Amino acid sequence: MRILGVDPGTIFTGYGIIDFESNELKYVSAGIIKIPTTKEMSPRLLIIYNELDNMIKQFHPDEFALETAFYGKNVQSALKIGYARGVSMLAAAHNDVPMKEYSPREIKKSVVGNGAASKEQVQYMIKKLLALRKTKMKFDESDALAVAICHAFKVNSFSKKSKNWKEFILENPDRVIG
Amino acid sequence: MRILGVDPGTIFTGYGIIDFESNELKYVSAGIIKIPTTKEMSPRLLIIYNELDNMIKQFHPDEFALETAFYGKNVQSALKIGYARGVSMLAAAHNDVPMKEYSPREIKKSVVGNGAASKEQVQYMIKKLLALRKTKMKFDESDALAVAICHAFKVNSFSKKSKNWKEFILENPDRVIG
Repeated sequence: MRILGVDPGTIFTGYGIIDFESNELKYVSAGIIKIPTTKEMSPRLLIIYNELDNMIKQFHPDEFALETAFYGKNVQSALKIGYARGVSMLAAAHNDVPMKEYSPREIKKSVVGNGAASKEQVQYMIKKLLALRKTKMKFDESDALAVAICHAFKVNSFSKKSKNWKEFILENPDRVIG
Repeated sequence: MRILGVDPGTIFTGYGIIDFESNELKYVSAGIIKIPTTKEMSPRLLIIYNELDNMIKQFHPDEFALETAFYGKNVQSALKIGYARGVSMLAAAHNDVPMKEYSPREIKKSVVGNGAASKEQVQYMIKKLLALRKTKMKFDESDALAVAICHAFKVNSFSKKSKNWKEFILENPDRVIG
């Protein structure tokens, strides 16, 4: 399964693409969409949408994962992050890529094991998990890769959990005492 | 000039279309895009985008006006309004319709003459200005028409203001004392 993780913002939008097959994570691509602040808001949103749209068409992700909650207190910042997230979700919807949202806490807990981890700790774990030797990496990039990895882990744990006894028996025949 | 005014929200998105020619306002259309709250956020944003995109293709507005500032204190509401506004701006940008943003205060001041006017006062003035006999009108509809009218008034006052003495003399030859 190929996952595109996005950390949307109206100045920098980070993206990270990973492959997740038979419990193995593989780095595909990551980077930052830099949006010129000199432009008005609507052409800036167009840049975010177009870049993500191109990326989806080029890399064909099966799923799209997004950081969504916002813990800050500044209403104007929330509004602007909302613009960037709105157009990011639309890029996924227009390309029929299913989307999942995760809160920063969920992402950190899933990747580092601690919901209050720092950006440095997240980046350190990302590099370990993806065996990346790249020394220079921006936080927008590692955050986007973290969303993608969080989604991979969630999908995995979900598929591992049997929903009822019938499924459990079918999936674990060795545990049934004849 | 045809103006599409939009008051974006993730439950109701109001729209209003007016024509403004030789200082006269004419009602063209108005309504509400109702978004089913049962759906997830990304298909809901798709509905807002698609409806506005269709509307632009059907009515060919020359300009797009949007209410943008947010005066509330709730960060989660700001985030959601941001989603709706982001995809609305994108619908305009994708169709090359120039966009202008106005704050609720600016809109009320321009339409009612009082920046702190109530929604009822705004609706009353909208009906007067557009000679609408429609008795039932939702606030999302009158608010969207108000944004469109505010834009018409701003464009008008801007075009009336000469930028320098040379333009002033050219536009007002009778005021030059020979």
